[in-house]
Amino acid sequence: MKTDHNLDIADLAERVQKGERRALARAITLVESARSDHKAQAVALLDLLPKARQALRIGLSGTPGVGKSTFIESFGMMLVAQGLKVAVLAVDPSSTRSGGSILGDKTRMDRLSRDPAAFIRPSPSQTHLGGVARRSREAVALCEGAGFDVVLIETVGVGQSETVVAQMADIFLLLLAPAGGDELQGVKRGIMEIADMILINKADGDLKPAAMRTCADYAGALRLLRKRAQDPPGYPKAMMVSALQEDGLDAVWADLNSLRDWRQEQGFWERTRADQARYWFEQDVRNGLLAQLETPQARGALMRLGEEVAAGHTAPAAAAAAFLTSLSKSDTSKP
Amino acid sequence: MKTDHNLDIADLAERVQKGERRALARAITLVESARSDHKAQAVALLDLLPKARQALRIGLSGTPGVGKSTFIESFGMMLVAQGLKVAVLAVDPSSTRSGGSILGDKTRMDRLSRDPAAFIRPSPSQTHLGGVARRSREAVALCEGAGFDVVLIETVGVGQSETVVAQMADIFLLLLAPAGGDELQGVKRGIMEIADMILINKADGDLKPAAMRTCADYAGALRLLRKRAQDPPGYPKAMMVSALQEDGLDAVWADLNSLRDWRQEQGFWERTRADQARYWFEQDVRNGLLAQLETPQARGALMRLGEEVAAGHTAPAAAAAAFLTSLSKSDTSKP
Repeated sequence: MKTDHNLDIADLAERVQKGERRALARAITLVESARSDHKAQAVALLDLLPKARQALRIGLSGTPGVGKSTFIESFGMMLVAQGLKVAVLAVDPSSTRSGGSILGDKTRMDRLSRDPAAFIRPSPSQTHLGGVARRSREAVALCEGAGFDVVLIETVGVGQSETVVAQMADIFLLLLAPAGGDELQGVKRGIMEIADMILINKADGDLKPAAMRTCADYAGALRLLRKRAQDPPGYPKAMMVSALQEDGLDAVWADLNSLRDWRQEQGFWERTRADQARYWFEQDVRNGLLAQLETPQARGALMRLGEEVAAGHTAPAAAAAAFLTSLSKSDTSKP
Repeated sequence: MKTDHNLDIADLAERVQKGERRALARAITLVESARSDHKAQAVALLDLLPKARQALRIGLSGTPGVGKSTFIESFGMMLVAQGLKVAVLAVDPSSTRSGGSILGDKTRMDRLSRDPAAFIRPSPSQTHLGGVARRSREAVALCEGAGFDVVLIETVGVGQSETVVAQMADIFLLLLAPAGGDELQGVKRGIMEIADMILINKADGDLKPAAMRTCADYAGALRLLRKRAQDPPGYPKAMMVSALQEDGLDAVWADLNSLRDWRQEQGFWERTRADQARYWFEQDVRNGLLAQLETPQARGALMRLGEEVAAGHTAPAAAAAAFLTSLSKSDTSKP
């Protein structure tokens, strides 16, 4: 991002609200920045956006190879054809290690990426999930403020990334490929418990019989899970789709809207959003406190004291107390 | 703990070093206290203890019913008979919820608890693992300073407690009961990866054949695990014991010492201790920063801002920024 000390936040907020894609892209770059001046600008920007605008936030998880990009392309194009504006964001904590994100790759969503009603943003490159999470959640808020109707938040099943995405999504979809009888063992119990709908993709051609079996297996497994208060009868559910043949996507959309309507009527929708907002506020506070450890000065002191502790010259607790005292002293010496 | 403003830390440190059990118990109560003046005294006390004294720190995990107390009683008495001083500490994050710790229960270690060469301390009651962890690690340091030769750190397989205990142990033992062929599925992969030795207990009477099968199963599973640099040939290993009949305990002790000797010769021993000390230093720093959120004033502000965020009046990031600013201001107003 080009440094711009004269960046007019009020102007940027206005252009984001009008749905200008370049302004939105720039705003997301701002929330993704690690610089403290950018961070302050991002906070101001987010606070200027209208709080009443709400997109339908859909979390989507699936391991590489299940056809996530094809699903997003087909599903997104269907929504765009209905007159909806669709944003696609990716949360991928592993993207730096794997040498660049494969998620949200525009070249793999060719039609959608060229559609004026769509906006696709790859995962910010980051080494730790916490940073990716905060930035992604703020990017979701920016897309809402820009007037998008649907925000798809895509992730791979790496570590805790699904749990983090579930904390910013209204509805969570798990995409799976047809497989043999052992398939159920490969899916973590945690992800089964947060999924609202499990979609068995590639239910076409030779794979259709396997897809039917896999779908029946998951439908059975979902019935065995403990019932959650926020689920109407029949949910969570397992369904078959073919993203390639664009088959079953309308049924997914219809069932997703039924689920939304029910949760809104029963009050679960607003309660979940309120809980999520509170969660992110508390995360921001914690991360803000811990950010004091990230300055070059603090890193140097941590390294130096860490070596003393490792060598056995100082007890861990005494070194920590000394560090915290020096930190609060350097705080009070600020103007 | 009785409040004592005139507590002489230098005197307490001296008596702990002499191995006075009442002084040690009092010192542990001090490190377990949540009061900030006690915390400062605990830090001073830990720093006064000789850094050169080292006990053999043995982590021990096993689900309820595998015979942990019986094992500790028999194993501990064997060590005491060899002239060694043995301390037993428990790490049990669930102890408050279950209405009091069952770990380190002196009534279940009748002979050991009455032996002058032994010291048994139940888990501090705490609601979160982080607090239990820090206090337990400092209790280990106190036992080392008091001249104990062996510190057994006992835990149940609840959540992350084994990982935490592994960060304060030199050698980690997993105690299991004989079982049917499905047993292997019940043990979390994580614990298999940190265990240095797996002990199949109750290898006596009718259960001996089942114990042999279970032992063979685990020996096979351990061979499939990725080799760790800090393991000599043949480790991690699975062995049979009978704590009740005091059978196989000498073999465990011999193998444990072989493992220690090898790791000391190869330099892994000191390196692991240095890494652990650095880890606890960093944990102490993080927890010290986050402790600012635990004051009544901070809790009140968090609650109030959290409600504003939940109601949608303020963005999470803006509320967090406001909170952090007020926190640093209240810091600078300190004398």
